Parts: sequence; structure tokens; C-alpha cells
Amino acid sequence: MTPLVTKLTYCGCFSLDEPLLLESGQTLGPLTVAYETYGVLSPQKDNAILLCHALSGDSHAAGIYADQPEYKGWWDHYVGPGKTIDTNRFFVVSSNVIGGCKGSTGPSSIDPKTGSPYGMRFPVITVGDMVRAQAALLDHLEIDKLYAVIGGSMGGMQALEWAIMYPQRVDKIISIASTSKLSPQAISFDAVGRNAIISDPNWADGDYYANPTWPEKGLSIARMIGHITYLSEASMMIKFGRNLQEKTDYGYDFSTDFQVESYLKYQGEKFVSRFDANAYLYLTKALSYFDLEKKYGSLESAFADTTCKFLVLAITSDWLYPPKQSKDIVKALMKMGKRVTYSVLDSPYGHDAFLLKNERLEQLLEAFLA
Amino acid sequence: MTPLVTKLTYCGCFSLDEPLLLESGQTLGPLTVAYETYGVLSPQKDNAILLCHALSGDSHAAGIYADQPEYKGWWDHYVGPGKTIDTNRFFVVSSNVIGGCKGSTGPSSIDPKTGSPYGMRFPVITVGDMVRAQAALLDHLEIDKLYAVIGGSMGGMQALEWAIMYPQRVDKIISIASTSKLSPQAISFDAVGRNAIISDPNWADGDYYANPTWPEKGLSIARMIGHITYLSEASMMIKFGRNLQEKTDYGYDFSTDFQVESYLKYQGEKFVSRFDANAYLYLTKALSYFDLEKKYGSLESAFADTTCKFLVLAITSDWLYPPKQSKDIVKALMKMGKRVTYSVLDSPYGHDAFLLKNERLEQLLEAFLA
Repeated sequence: MTPLVTKLTYCGCFSLDEPLLLESGQTLGPLTVAYETYGVLSPQKDNAILLCHALSGDSHAAGIYADQPEYKGWWDHYVGPGKTIDTNRFFVVSSNVIGGCKGSTGPSSIDPKTGSPYGMRFPVITVGDMVRAQAALLDHLEIDKLYAVIGGSMGGMQALEWAIMYPQRVDKIISIASTSKLSPQAISFDAVGRNAIISDPNWADGDYYANPTWPEKGLSIARMIGHITYLSEASMMIKFGRNLQEKTDYGYDFSTDFQVESYLKYQGEKFVSRFDANAYLYLTKALSYFDLEKKYGSLESAFADTTCKFLVLAITSDWLYPPKQSKDIVKALMKMGKRVTYSVLDSPYGHDAFLLKNERLEQLLEAFLA
Repeated sequence: MTPLVTKLTYCGCFSLDEPLLLESGQTLGPLTVAYETYGVLSPQKDNAILLCHALSGDSHAAGIYADQPEYKGWWDHYVGPGKTIDTNRFFVVSSNVIGGCKGSTGPSSIDPKTGSPYGMRFPVITVGDMVRAQAALLDHLEIDKLYAVIGGSMGGMQALEWAIMYPQRVDKIISIASTSKLSPQAISFDAVGRNAIISDPNWADGDYYANPTWPEKGLSIARMIGHITYLSEASMMIKFGRNLQEKTDYGYDFSTDFQVESYLKYQGEKFVSRFDANAYLYLTKALSYFDLEKKYGSLESAFADTTCKFLVLAITSDWLYPPKQSKDIVKALMKMGKRVTYSVLDSPYGHDAFLLKNERLEQLLEAFLA
């Protein structure tokens, strides 16, 4: 990969040779973890922050690449020299989750046993497995203890698992627009999205990598469904209302009439060019499986041995992982006597508001990281 | 069709030979309207009630057929001898909308010009067009004036259009869980559903009727998306929670893990056996186009010439057409000095609660129809 233009230090991969034991009981290896780091690790190694990305994110959290000046990192608002997560002060590590398609081992990777892409022979992974791979990366970077783990949505789930699985390795956790378990409604949206991919004849049981056609239509539908859940009704009303797309009246045909239709179609098509359909299956499965109560018996017992400080942030208009779910996490933490700060960001932009520049979010992050 | 078992009088079709002028400017004809009637029309013809069905409904609103004792009408809870809409007192007419696939002319009907099914050559129809076809049916039945028009969801839109388009022909209007226009979020869900159908290679540009395979997967996905919007998060939690489907632990594979997934899959598959994919395209298009403000300039001017009494009912947990949208209708009616009763039914069952037996709904209907 091309080096980053901003003062960021590294962009590459780490490979783990011994296989990773997964929560399913299966193993996965050898394993590659793609990651970027920004800033400099202090001699005391006490300034490392791990950023965890959401479903469709990647390790490119900040800055730009020399040859792609338009392609900013997904949290570039917040991460960089002099920014909220100040890379003059912190050494920030951002890695791509396993099971994805952005450089870390996933279903599109070559299965060493067959010499062909894994496809659906890739083992089902969980959010806990993603965290295990991140811990292996930190071992490789010789970082024993993290100053903080920060993530939104699926990234927030990883942050929570960090607090639970590696209590001795993390001082502060920030979970934004996340949940301790998906609601049946959220499970449903993901299940229908997977169904759309699997129903696409070009999916070919997941073995499409050598084919001229990929399951683009199915993946695009899955993304459109997802995208509706990332926005709020209010934000759709603000952004699009019932405005028509380059028309003054209804077409009375089946072309695109409304701006919101056109926008979703565009989102679907854009996604297909940057994401792998099988990875979408695996990552949404990991989301559906995420359930701290089931895994640890109860939320209280999940958090029993945690030692870090928690910042739990919800978004008023987030109906995918609504504030109520963040509040449940906070209640359990308080019940267990843990140090937790809770805040609800007032934003009309729905779940995806955590990706947007938000002054209040800046203030909360700064105060908590201080 | 087989006669109804209960004391209901008719079940059949009416054909209109002259073409119907549609809101698009196109014409549609000859036209068949499938309908059922329950009860007896009084000599004064002053006891007729028109029932309007929702997206996936049909003319079979009450009772059962002799040969299908399990197949109850969609509002059998409310319509029948001695029931809330008492067929000992009222003459109830229930017709299938045009553009559908339940006996009235729709995209699966034979186009007299070609001798083959219309497919996508069927003209785009609107809720107003559905109402025009119903008015033609009432002309045929020689009913000048309706005691009431009642409908839920898309049926409620028809009821509102009845009040506006035929003010001299209707005394009372009941609109339940409906809206004066779909939100961009609701438009989006319908658009993605249509996209799923159109993306199914078996859709074949709508000319699949003679083919061995129909766009079942696409239609099933569209239905699953729709079905999520008909339920509420709370009702899904009550009904399914995160319960596993015939499993004690995750399968760590891509089979169905959760009950809610299994339920949605079943709903999708069941729907495919009883609904036409092209009809789904046309009816959801009619829903997206429904916008009384756009059609009449404003909600106030839409209702300016109405003379009937209105009962507007919303459902607390309906997030497809939320109470706020019913309230907007009520506000406009009040501003125009119309007689309107508004009530919000407290139910956790989401949009589809209007199809369920509900005591409060019974009371409200009875009082308003008295």
C-alpha cells in the first residue's frame, strides 16, 4: 500500500502463523491482519489507542493515501495531529476485522488447504474472534496495555469485548451507537440482506471469485436495506423528503421517481464496488451472534471482572441500536460498581451519526481521554 | 367461486366495458372488479358499507368458502352477523383493488390487445384509480350513497380518497393505521422490495407468466422487508426475542439460527404462493405515489369539499404510518371545520394491529357506526 500523506507511521499487514482458536471451536490460520497506525508509540508504551471499525469499515481510519487524496479515513474528523484523538499525543492502531474483505483474512482470502478462496468454507467468526485477532496484532506490536479502545456500532461491540476479554490490557473503553445484543428486528434486517445475497444466482454458493459475474444485485439489495436502518426517518425527511429525482411529476412508470430511491440505489451500487458479498454474510452473522448476556450468562456477569473506565454513547435518533440498549449496558455496569459515563448525543441523523463530525461527540471524547 | 358458508349473499365479478380513465392519463379497460357482499341491501339502499383492503388483501373480507373452511376473510373478526360491522344490519361490499391479483384486473390479467398477460405493459395505477373502479362497481350495484367506507393501511388511503373524490356519495369514513402520504423511509422499503423482484432473473421483465419459474425469491425478499415494517420492535421481542429455532446453541453456519429468521422466511414463502410479483410492483408504486398534499395542493384543500364524518385511528406502535401522520390528517380536517374523531389504539403489535381482534377498536367502530 502507498504510504499515508499525513504524519502517520504505518500501513501494512501482520501475519500470525499459529492458527487462532475461534469461539465456534474451529481454528483459522494462518491469519493476516491489515492495520494502520497513526502517531508514535511512547517509550513507556502507554499511549496506544485501538480503533475498531463498523460493518463496512476498514483499517483506514484517518488520513489519506498519496495516490488517493480523496479517500479519507472513516474517522478522519476525529483522528489526526491536533484533532480530538490527537496523534501528536496518541499512538493509534486501526485494524481490519477478520472475516471482512479489507486486507485481513476473510472468505475471499486463499484457503491454504485448497489454494482457492475460502468462500463459504471460511469458518463463522464472532465479534470475540475479531478481538482475539486484534490482541494478537497488539502482541506483535509489543503493546501490553491500551490507553483506550474506541469503536462505533460493530466497533463498539469490539470495545465492550475488549473490556471483558482482556481486562488487564485496557484502561478506557468508548462504545458509541452500539449494543450488547441485536434486537430481533435488527437480526431480521440482516437476515433478509443475507437472503438477498444468497438468492442471487451469481452468488454460486459463495464460489463466485473466479466467475465473470459476482452477486452484485443481491449485495446491493442487502446494502440498501442496511442503509435504511443507518439513517433515521427524520434524516431522510430532512435530506430527501418526497422530492422527485430530476422530474417535475411522477413518471407513471417503474423508473426511479424519488430522490431517496435514487440515493439508495447509488449507495447499493457504490458498495458493490468496494465490498465482498461473502464478507457481508460473515460479518452480519457475527453481528447477529453478538449477545453478551448469552455468552456470559448475564450483562452483570459479563462486566464482573472489567477494570477499565467506560464511556457509553448513544444517539437519540438511532433506531437500529436505540439508546435503550446502551442504557441497559450502563445499568449493568453501575450495578457492578464500575466507573461509567453515559451520554445520549442529540442528533437527527440516526445510527450513522457516529461517523459524522459532531461537536458534542468531540467534547465527550476529549474529556474522557484527558 | 364457491358460495360463502355464512349468510353472505354474493361472491363474484363485475365487468366494466368502457375503459377507466386513469390519473396517469392512460386508460384501462375492459375492467373486471372481483367483489363479495355480506348482508342485504335495504330497500332504501341506505345501509351499504364499502370495505377497502390493504396491500396484500383481497375481496374476501369475511366468512369462509364452503370448500375452504380454514380460509377466513381478513376482517372476519369484525364483519359478520352480530359482529361489530353487523351484516344483519349493514350491506357490506368488499372489492379487490385494480392492479392487484385477486380477481380484479391487474398485470397478470389478459391484455385484450395482445391476448397475453399485461405484465409491465399494465398502466401504473394510483389509489385514486382504485377508488374510481370501486365507484363503478357501486354504480353497477345501484348504490348511490355509502353509509361508510372503512379501510386500514392502503385501505385507509382509499377511504380518504372516497371522502375527497365522491363527497356526495359517502356519509362516514374510517381510516385506520393509514397516512396522507408515505414518508421517504416507507418509500424506501417499498423501493428496495421492488428492486429485489426486478433483480430476480426469473422476473424476465415481467413476462414470466408462461415460464416454469417465477420470481419467487425476489417476491419473497420484498415480502420479508415489508413484513418487518408491519410488526413493531416490541412485538418481535414479545413473539420471538432472540430465541433460537430448534437449536440450543448457535449453528456457526448459515442455516437459520433465530426463530424470527425462520418466521420471516416462512412469511416470504407463503406469500409467494398467493401473490403475483408484478402486482406487488404496481401496488407498492401506487402506495409511493399516494400523496394528498401533492394531488390537491395541500391537506386542507384536499378536504375542503368533504361532507362526511371522519374517524381516524392510529396505532401507538405503528412505525410504518406512525400516529403523527394520522394526526396531520386530523389537524387539517379540524382546520377545515370538518367533523372528525381521532383515537390512538394502544397496541404493541405495530402496523398490522389493525388486522387483529382488538376490543377498543370494536368499541370505536361500533360507536362511530351507530
